[in-house]
Amino acid sequence: MKKLINKVEDVVNDSLAGMGAAHANLLRVDLESQIVVRKNAPVQSKVGILSGGGSGHEPMHGGYVGIGMLDAACPGAIFTSPVPDQMLAATRAVNGQAGVLHIIKNYTGDVLNFEMAAELAELDGIKIESVVTNDDVAVQDSLYTAGRRGVGVTVLLEKIVGGLAETGAPLEQVAALARKVNSHGRSMGMALTACTVPAAGEPTFDLSEDEMEIGIGIHGEPGRRRLKLASAAQITEMLATPIIEDLELKAGEQVLAFVNGMGGTPLIELYIIYDSLNRILTGKNIRIVRNLIGNYITSLEMAGCSITLLRLDDEITRYWDAPVYTPALRWGM
Amino acid sequence: MKKLINKVEDVVNDSLAGMGAAHANLLRVDLESQIVVRKNAPVQSKVGILSGGGSGHEPMHGGYVGIGMLDAACPGAIFTSPVPDQMLAATRAVNGQAGVLHIIKNYTGDVLNFEMAAELAELDGIKIESVVTNDDVAVQDSLYTAGRRGVGVTVLLEKIVGGLAETGAPLEQVAALARKVNSHGRSMGMALTACTVPAAGEPTFDLSEDEMEIGIGIHGEPGRRRLKLASAAQITEMLATPIIEDLELKAGEQVLAFVNGMGGTPLIELYIIYDSLNRILTGKNIRIVRNLIGNYITSLEMAGCSITLLRLDDEITRYWDAPVYTPALRWGM
Repeated sequence: MKKLINKVEDVVNDSLAGMGAAHANLLRVDLESQIVVRKNAPVQSKVGILSGGGSGHEPMHGGYVGIGMLDAACPGAIFTSPVPDQMLAATRAVNGQAGVLHIIKNYTGDVLNFEMAAELAELDGIKIESVVTNDDVAVQDSLYTAGRRGVGVTVLLEKIVGGLAETGAPLEQVAALARKVNSHGRSMGMALTACTVPAAGEPTFDLSEDEMEIGIGIHGEPGRRRLKLASAAQITEMLATPIIEDLELKAGEQVLAFVNGMGGTPLIELYIIYDSLNRILTGKNIRIVRNLIGNYITSLEMAGCSITLLRLDDEITRYWDAPVYTPALRWGM
Repeated sequence: MKKLINKVEDVVNDSLAGMGAAHANLLRVDLESQIVVRKNAPVQSKVGILSGGGSGHEPMHGGYVGIGMLDAACPGAIFTSPVPDQMLAATRAVNGQAGVLHIIKNYTGDVLNFEMAAELAELDGIKIESVVTNDDVAVQDSLYTAGRRGVGVTVLLEKIVGGLAETGAPLEQVAALARKVNSHGRSMGMALTACTVPAAGEPTFDLSEDEMEIGIGIHGEPGRRRLKLASAAQITEMLATPIIEDLELKAGEQVLAFVNGMGGTPLIELYIIYDSLNRILTGKNIRIVRNLIGNYITSLEMAGCSITLLRLDDEITRYWDAPVYTPALRWGM
């Protein structure tokens, strides 16, 4: 196992310490509670936006804490759900008396722990709404999930909903937009290589030199099928077609296209995938009017990519375009 | 070789096509001339800022074309200098009658070809200044270089000088700031793995499972020494110490700290390196007042990192902070 780490058991803590030192203008890291919190939280009368999940998917979620996106993130151990205590501490830290939205990727552990944290927070008198993302069209159930997995849409949703929350909108409206964004987006991923969880020291699965896995999850969970390596154009077709069909995208519609790297794939390759995706959508007269290309929801050093398409309407586009300032996404400020 | 590509010979073109489609609001890609040009170039009475070099280092340089950074980039084949014709076409495209600055990383091919392009441009009556970056403290000469290699400082320099050029400053002033930034910055890198140039199909070098290369170049050129894998803290020490000594950084000074990923290293590890770097500098009472952490000057899918420290003064800080809007760096707009 070749990694830039110190002790295996310190990976998450050391990385959080670096993040706290690097972005002290935006956020603070509480290593004891294992939470990342917007510097000036709680913002009075603003809905607090909280997400969390296993580490190993950086910059998600800690890299999205700041202005106009998340108010807090609770990172678990690598590929492991955070615990309810973390979620409760983060919820309290961002409660500005307007309620807190929990954004949860659909994995069994995350869902259960966030449910428990919400119950505890409500005992404190904090109003909670929860939204579960489940945008992965690859498989219906998986190793860690009942129902579809939550993947790339989560990043887009956190940005869009964070933009609305910044305007002082009430919790119900923020939660409704979150549910709409989730329903408007679908994703699918693939891997060329596995990744190695530091505590395990071995790759999460084996893939031979001429194989790829289509429909992979962000923890290396098996996907739809294992195939011989194909061209970027063919791979893009395999990922985009199920998304377009599931979303029932029609000619004339506008989308945000998100080409995400899994962590070990260089940008030069992601732009090749984007080129293919643009050709496929243009051929169907579906217009890409916004895009995001890079490593935003990763699986450690896995090589591969995912595609997310998000059907746009005026409201979603407005809050996607709204100013944001976080370690990983920044514009308008 | 596992890559998300179509034909090996189309890698650069396909990626540039994707980049042109994705960022049409900022730039245009001329596939015939193999150049990436700011959308509204030439900007009249503004110094044109041009850089270029082999592909495989994305987002450098094409990802830095836009507002407040580069006016154009000329990407060569992977790890291969662009040719003088590309550089000349890009120079003409960004000539707004205030002259053009060529930013050249110190590799023999790049330097010779940019010299020839500058001569040709001057025959056209275009005033040219050239600055060569040579910030890599690892080795004095290398496989592709007489003198030190140009690496991480190039990214910072392009941002800072681009900020000044946007104010309408004259060519001599822009070139002088470029030379100052180069003299204020030093870098050193390391690799955990090699990378594979698509046309070669084989890794650029061999490194066994328990080895790393300290002082590596961005094309996989040999570094200072090959060692057994060490901890992130030890690696950071090995990279930072020669930089601090070479820059003669003193207690009380302020720096920009840039922790760069080589392409295949996940962000969670880069923050661990940043944490160590912050401890080392804090221990010497050298203050990090700006930072940049991520994949900005890469070697395809190589795993590893580099550290760059840039001594700050008011002028450099002002233009680092100035608004920028490119595919890869964006703030203030």
